[in-house]
Order: sequence, then structure tokens, then C-alpha cells
Amino acid sequence: MEVADLYDVVIIGGGPAGLTAGQYAARGKLKTVILDKSATAGALAFSSRIENYPGLTHPVQGKELLDVMRKQAVDFGAEYVETQVIGANLSDEIKEAISMDRAYSGKTMIIATGSMGRKPSIKGEAEFLGRGVSYCAICDAAFYRGLRVCVIGNSEEAVKEAGVLTRFAETVYLISPTPKLHVEDHPVLKEPNIKVLLGHTVTSIVGAELVEKIKMHDAEGNETELEIAGVFVYLHGNKPIIDFLFGSVETKDDGCIPVGCMMETSIPGVFAAGDVTCTEIRQVVVAASQGCIAALAAEKYLYKRKKYRMDWAK
Amino acid sequence: MEVADLYDVVIIGGGPAGLTAGQYAARGKLKTVILDKSATAGALAFSSRIENYPGLTHPVQGKELLDVMRKQAVDFGAEYVETQVIGANLSDEIKEAISMDRAYSGKTMIIATGSMGRKPSIKGEAEFLGRGVSYCAICDAAFYRGLRVCVIGNSEEAVKEAGVLTRFAETVYLISPTPKLHVEDHPVLKEPNIKVLLGHTVTSIVGAELVEKIKMHDAEGNETELEIAGVFVYLHGNKPIIDFLFGSVETKDDGCIPVGCMMETSIPGVFAAGDVTCTEIRQVVVAASQGCIAALAAEKYLYKRKKYRMDWAK
Repeated sequence: MEVADLYDVVIIGGGPAGLTAGQYAARGKLKTVILDKSATAGALAFSSRIENYPGLTHPVQGKELLDVMRKQAVDFGAEYVETQVIGANLSDEIKEAISMDRAYSGKTMIIATGSMGRKPSIKGEAEFLGRGVSYCAICDAAFYRGLRVCVIGNSEEAVKEAGVLTRFAETVYLISPTPKLHVEDHPVLKEPNIKVLLGHTVTSIVGAELVEKIKMHDAEGNETELEIAGVFVYLHGNKPIIDFLFGSVETKDDGCIPVGCMMETSIPGVFAAGDVTCTEIRQVVVAASQGCIAALAAEKYLYKRKKYRMDWAK
Repeated sequence: MEVADLYDVVIIGGGPAGLTAGQYAARGKLKTVILDKSATAGALAFSSRIENYPGLTHPVQGKELLDVMRKQAVDFGAEYVETQVIGANLSDEIKEAISMDRAYSGKTMIIATGSMGRKPSIKGEAEFLGRGVSYCAICDAAFYRGLRVCVIGNSEEAVKEAGVLTRFAETVYLISPTPKLHVEDHPVLKEPNIKVLLGHTVTSIVGAELVEKIKMHDAEGNETELEIAGVFVYLHGNKPIIDFLFGSVETKDDGCIPVGCMMETSIPGVFAAGDVTCTEIRQVVVAASQGCIAALAAEKYLYKRKKYRMDWAK
């Protein structure tokens, strides 16, 4: 690997914690990359109205606030990459975040993936995970070339992931539990091989070795079945998103990452910030503050600093 | 005291920590008052340019950001009072913040006074404190009716305090260590009994039982003396502002207030947030976050809640 590829700080997550960490790290002249699954996913992106973030002159959509924070991070010099991290190597001095197409290596890492994760809740979901059930279209779409798949969800993220699948699958069913999608006129919805089912709740995933079909009911309660090879689930819960860590960082029973005052995790050089931590308070300003602290802690770790910079103004 | 006068939360300090605490407390339907020495004083107010606060679309003056945060707190229902707190009674279940003209009683208190305080640094300053040296014109101006006094400082706060003194003193000398004041064309400067000395450094305060004169030198180093009865010091340092507490809350050696994860101090029901705490990182977003946490902790204390509200959007 070339030295130019080695980052000072690799940040996983592009919510208020990750973007604020990126801004502070970049302002500290650290070579910084922010790896974000989707600029339109996450707890803040899905908030239609935010008015309690200090400094707002009027209520805004969560996405607008994220856009501003992302611009600040990038303007200060952070690299922003929309990519899904599917694994991590934290056992060596250089830490790695692994996406589908490459590894991002850093002297420090900040985990800021939030807590929109969920436990498998559909009958058969856990059983068939990796055998037809997936949470990552970009990772697994190629396995479904010429087959029928479905995406369960109603968000822009779900629609985009369905779009990825349309390039491989014969037919993509986008199954929304609500009577409307949370997007309007997305170009993906015009793809000839996409079919949208609104107000449908998937009740079970059925198969033998691999997934074979799903059962669902519509808004009126009528049961239907659909033969299908792949089920991509994009329903949002409130579990910390830590699956890509495969237990390499200490977590508590409910999956959250415990951190110290400087956002340090159980692994030196690895920090966590925002809703993925065992924070009691899930507020944008708290996540942003933790991102700030994590970045300054990473800087201190890199330079073995005794004191933090205390500039208010610059 | 009438019940109507009892607040749920009394917040001392109107910087990012105090204003954010006020916003969150008021949004939680708590009867909230913010007591602020001056809307134009404090570390953020004195910052001429802030660009790293997450969510800013362009660099702003610290005062502008404070104005927005104050408006949010007031719009959500917090009472904002510009008054200087000179004492506190924290020993009973109902806590009191004492200003010159009244006491503000609260079931909880949040101390967010920041860290612009300073140790006496002028020769004679500590010796004559309370005997001619004062840090509060509104408290002590009446003692100097018909006498000559000076205000040492160059901020808008110093100019305003000089304005209070012009209504009592024979002559008010405004002594600025810098060649320019940090205000332009303030109406106080047109008062007939104010005299401005620019680029003058006061080197000692001299007297017997009470202050009698000050010694200073001008920008060229020439020594001069001035007969004077009162010296009001408005120079800013970086010590936590805790003088009004008179030791009633536990502090560390350097005067900062140690707090737990929920911003609790050594006294149940009394919380602290922002730069007055033993925080290592003095950043606006961190102070605001601590204000948020302190308000939710106060709410929990009031209602013995088990869980914090986790709303992102509302």
C-alpha cells in the first residue's frame, strides 16, 4: 500500500457525529476520510423537522442540516466517500475499514455508525441471513443475476438499493409497509423491471436451503405469497450499528459501544461517537459534540499531546 | 414567596451552555429562567469569527450565534433576564440565585457561567477587593456617588458598566489597555463625565484603608498616577467563574466544577455545564451539548424519570 493511502483518521458514518469528527480532524490538518453508507440514510436524515439544534434560525429537515455539516467537513479538507463498510480490522496498529471494493487504512478510527440497526424481526429473517436475506444490495446484488428479489422498506435508501438490484435481477419488488414511499418520483421507480407494492407487510421468509418465497399481507389483511430468491431488508430499528465489527470492539449487551470521557473504546486508537455509543441522550447536538471530542482525542493519540487546542474562534 | 415565583430550573449564564439548557428545559415544559450577566459578554460573545460550529453555513460573529441560541430558548418559553448573580444559596431543597434586586428560586439549578474569570493580577487588586476594587458596577456604583472611579477594560461590557457608574460618580475614567476599544460610538462614550484613556496599563492600586490612587503607564511607557476612590476591573482571563458560589459547590484546585456524565455537581439538583466545568475541550458545540444534557438531567431529577426522552425531531 502506498503511504499516500494511509489516513490519519478513518471515520465510519456520515451523521452529525461522523461529520463533526471529520470537520475537526480536517481542521487539525489530519488526513481524514469519512465513509458514509448513504448521505440520505440515518436517524437525522430521516427526521423531517429539526428545530431544537442550537443555532438554527428556523426549523429544517434533517437532511438540510446534514448537508451543511457535510459541506463544512469537506470544505475543511475531509474526504467524503459514499460507501458501505462491511468489515474492519482493528487488531494491528494500522486500522482498516473494509468496503466492497477496497480497504481504508488509518492510524486512528472513529466509529460513528449510529443506531438505526435492528434485530431480525421477520419470521425466517435470521434463519436465512446470508442464504437469501441480505442488508446490503451493493454487496450481494451480483448473486441474484436474472433472479427475482425484493427490497423491504420505504426510504430513499431502500429505493436506491432497489435501483442497484434492477441492474442484476430479473424483477425487483419494492415492498413498502406504508401506503406511500418516503420519496417522490425517484428515477429508479421508472425502471422497467421494478414493481412497487405499497401497504404490504412481509410476515415470513420461507425456503429450504435457500430462500424460496415470502408471505405477506396487504393493508386489508389479505395474505399473498411471492416466489423470490433474495430478500433485502431496509427497515429501521434503534439498535447500534456494529455488525461490521464482528465483535472486535467491546460492546454492551444491547450492542452499544461503551466509551470514556474522550470517546475512547476498548481498543487504543479506536474511538466511537454518537448514537452507536452507550449514550443516554440521542440528540443531534450531543452526537456532534461527541464527534468533536473523538476527533480531538484522535489528534491527541496521534501526537501524544498533553493538551487539547482550546481555540474558540479560529 | 408566591408559588408562581418558583422555577423548575434556574440557569446562571447565557452562553451556549446556558442557552441550550434553557431551550431544552423550556421545551420540556419546565418553568425556566436564564440569568445572564450580559448578552454581550463571555467567551463566545467576544469571538469575532466562528466557523467550526457544526451547522453553520458561513462564518459568523460569536454574538450572532448567541443571538440565535437566545431566540430559540425564549421562543420555546424560557424567561431571559439580564442580571448579575452575586450569591447563591444551595443548602436547601429549593436553590436560590441572588442578584442585586431579588432572589430567583428553583427546584434545580444549572451553573453555566463559563470561564472568563481571572485571578487578581494587578498589584493591590486582591488587597483592596471590597475596599475600592469591585467587579460589579451595578452592585457597587451607589457607594461612589460624587467620587472619581475608573473602569479597566476595553469590551462592550466594560463600556456599559462605565455607563452605570456615570450616573453616580463625579468622573468615570475608562482605561483601555489597547489603543482601541472593542466598541464603536457607544452612547455611553458621549456622557459628559466619562474620560477615555487608551493604551494605558494600570500597574498598581494604592491606598491605606481604602483605595486612594492608581499607577499606570501609557503606550510609550510613561508613568502616571490618578487619584481615585473606586476601581472596577473588566479584564478577561480564563478562570472558571465561580466567585458567587462562595465554595458551596465542590471545585478542583483551578476552580473548575467537576461533573459526572449527566453534568451533576456535588449537590443533588445542582448541575453545571460548559467551560465552568472541568471539561478539557472548550468548544461551542461541547458547551451546547453539556447544556442539553444538564437540562435533561434536571428534568429527570424533577420527575425521577428512568429514561430520557429520545426525540430527535420534535
